[in-house]
Amino acid sequence: MQPDQATQLRQLESQLAAEYQTILSKKLNLDLTRGKPSSDQLDLSDALDGILKGNYIAADGTDTRNYGGLDGLPEAKQLGANIMGVDAANVLVGGSSSLTLMFQVASTAYLFGLKDAASAWKNEGEVKFLCPVPGYDRHFTICEQLGIKMVTVPMTSTGPDMDAVEAAIKADSSIKGMWCVPKYSNPTGVVYSDETVERIAKLGKIASANFRVFWDNAYSVHDLVDNAPQLASILEATRRNGTEDSVLQFASTSKITQAGAGVAFVAASAANLAGFKKALGAQTIGPDKVNQIRHTRFLPDRSALMAHMKKHAELLNPRFEAVLEALAGAFEGTDLGAWEKPVGGYFVSFDTRKGCAKETVRLAAEAGVKLTPAGATYPYGKDPEDRNIRIAPSVPTVPEVVEAMKVFVTCVKLASVRQEIAALA
Amino acid sequence: MQPDQATQLRQLESQLAAEYQTILSKKLNLDLTRGKPSSDQLDLSDALDGILKGNYIAADGTDTRNYGGLDGLPEAKQLGANIMGVDAANVLVGGSSSLTLMFQVASTAYLFGLKDAASAWKNEGEVKFLCPVPGYDRHFTICEQLGIKMVTVPMTSTGPDMDAVEAAIKADSSIKGMWCVPKYSNPTGVVYSDETVERIAKLGKIASANFRVFWDNAYSVHDLVDNAPQLASILEATRRNGTEDSVLQFASTSKITQAGAGVAFVAASAANLAGFKKALGAQTIGPDKVNQIRHTRFLPDRSALMAHMKKHAELLNPRFEAVLEALAGAFEGTDLGAWEKPVGGYFVSFDTRKGCAKETVRLAAEAGVKLTPAGATYPYGKDPEDRNIRIAPSVPTVPEVVEAMKVFVTCVKLASVRQEIAALA
Repeated sequence: MQPDQATQLRQLESQLAAEYQTILSKKLNLDLTRGKPSSDQLDLSDALDGILKGNYIAADGTDTRNYGGLDGLPEAKQLGANIMGVDAANVLVGGSSSLTLMFQVASTAYLFGLKDAASAWKNEGEVKFLCPVPGYDRHFTICEQLGIKMVTVPMTSTGPDMDAVEAAIKADSSIKGMWCVPKYSNPTGVVYSDETVERIAKLGKIASANFRVFWDNAYSVHDLVDNAPQLASILEATRRNGTEDSVLQFASTSKITQAGAGVAFVAASAANLAGFKKALGAQTIGPDKVNQIRHTRFLPDRSALMAHMKKHAELLNPRFEAVLEALAGAFEGTDLGAWEKPVGGYFVSFDTRKGCAKETVRLAAEAGVKLTPAGATYPYGKDPEDRNIRIAPSVPTVPEVVEAMKVFVTCVKLASVRQEIAALA
Repeated sequence: MQPDQATQLRQLESQLAAEYQTILSKKLNLDLTRGKPSSDQLDLSDALDGILKGNYIAADGTDTRNYGGLDGLPEAKQLGANIMGVDAANVLVGGSSSLTLMFQVASTAYLFGLKDAASAWKNEGEVKFLCPVPGYDRHFTICEQLGIKMVTVPMTSTGPDMDAVEAAIKADSSIKGMWCVPKYSNPTGVVYSDETVERIAKLGKIASANFRVFWDNAYSVHDLVDNAPQLASILEATRRNGTEDSVLQFASTSKITQAGAGVAFVAASAANLAGFKKALGAQTIGPDKVNQIRHTRFLPDRSALMAHMKKHAELLNPRFEAVLEALAGAFEGTDLGAWEKPVGGYFVSFDTRKGCAKETVRLAAEAGVKLTPAGATYPYGKDPEDRNIRIAPSVPTVPEVVEAMKVFVTCVKLASVRQEIAALA
């Protein structure tokens, strides 16, 4: 290292520190933490309340106001099928939360078995799940709660590193499951390639018995562009490979209508559905069918659904553009950061240089810009390289996103240059 | 036994068999099986849909359309408090099913512990629950699903036989819980006496660690008469006795507004709520708050709630009267059956002579009157004396209840007399 370079770094640091001081004086209060719809987005579904106009009767004559119907109304199954691109016969409609459905399915597989009591994971000693990283913290929490050990595999721009996935499964028969967010992955925003989907469908052939992929298709219709990438059908791929029981798919209307007050779905093989329903029947008489029928009246078919999602895209698009423009402007062609350019979903995932994520998040927080805690996208909250930061731009206004990204860019640069200076010492 | 008596019995049998044949020829199709509201009752709450008129904001400013609020809106806690007669601070608002909440609490206590991991029942080998019988089949299913062994104690007209309860708990430290439906008990319809409530509150002093009473107050405001019996406050009783952690209370609006599409509540000590929320947070981001606010707008205070329940009583009362009049007319002063005279809830419970319940239910079914399967009110579906039958009169019209009870009475008599004749042989 030449003295010139050290001097240059210190000059750069001074300049960035001054910019940061200016930001501090603005006393900002901005939040890029969670993947929630904005209130403008929520307004799009306000017609849900009152949509029934006194008609609570489903197409098959079911009075939705009374008990029963463990697996949901036929038209609600069709709504789930429209969202997930599966057959209605493969859909069970749950309550208002797909996360709850995932927990219920995982705990059923663990405690009671999806096939029979002998198939319960708890019978097999240590149980492990493959977790592509970075990933979704709430998936990891389910594993932690159930005592399932998490084994990480890297995400790539075409989905999980399938060489690593297959090698891990072949080497370790205690791997009983894997988390996937196949379209607009949380947080990297990538769409799994056709090859990745095909290879995941084949895992059932090499994995140990009772292996299950949890296919959380949370963003299946959440495109930001017209010619959105198509996710290959995992259902068809498993049918081709005779591995239909190895995948359970999940989705909800939380980011379509009302977050946490929508309808959640699981799609699975007949055998998996039967096993799950057996356990579910001990837990509930049935889900809220009134909310199901509200949703089916509001989104009666696939074209109504897609037209509705277009309105979301119009609101989300400028926010994503603001993030991606800021990142490109500041970091394109540098080694200060790497990111995907998602065309759907709720997140932009940014990798700093090694060891700079926590410091970036800390600097941003002090400057009034809240980010998801560094490490949250990794099991047990530990990002081994301290690189990944999840940016969620849906809630703030566009000017707020622009402002927040100016802060973010400054904080990344400041953390990076200070790290370099520290390395000189 | 004198020949005269045998002849008399055979004559009576012939007469009853002829009556039964007449009934058969009517080809009836009536159903007294489940405790569901009638559609007239459900109509009482049709204003729920559309009640928000575009205002989705809770009193504290929460946008109910977005994620969050694991334990419910403040005004929804108050609704639960109004229903259960507890403080809002002790209430957590769940999804739409109190059965699901009971399962979630029971499985939390079993797997994760309500206090800490060390307090989990699973650490203690065999786990048993006391089940007052006859009782509610879905409570028993939760135990069966979790592998909890059920120990029966008899119900009396003042609640569970508390001598038996206390003796069982003193004798067996593996007893970790007890099911209670304290007001208009399912199915006997009795209200626990003040003494029973006080003795249940004291169980926490004699039971082993981590013992929990599941107080399913499903019918707390479901009175059929004006001067309804008052259930003593278990919360106050446990406070007096320093056993606040030993009881968890449950309720829902399923039989107040819409069945399965209402709001469910658990009321518990701060320690129990904290333990439960820790586990619940791994299962959901939060409950459906839009449905919560619909319900709080519809039932804004205790007097609105009670006025609404009076309308239910007006619809249910003639049905209960039809059942009780039929039973009194046929069996008062005989040894053919015994029953309580509930002034609330959803059931009348009838005890035949020993060994006559299954045959009565079979005869009624063949004559087109469906009854809950005999045995369903006992753990594992086994009524050791084959006596108990649960009558649920809420769904049929009054003339249908009258007709069904004529059949029921004939079937009880026929089963009884045939049993007596068989004993002669």
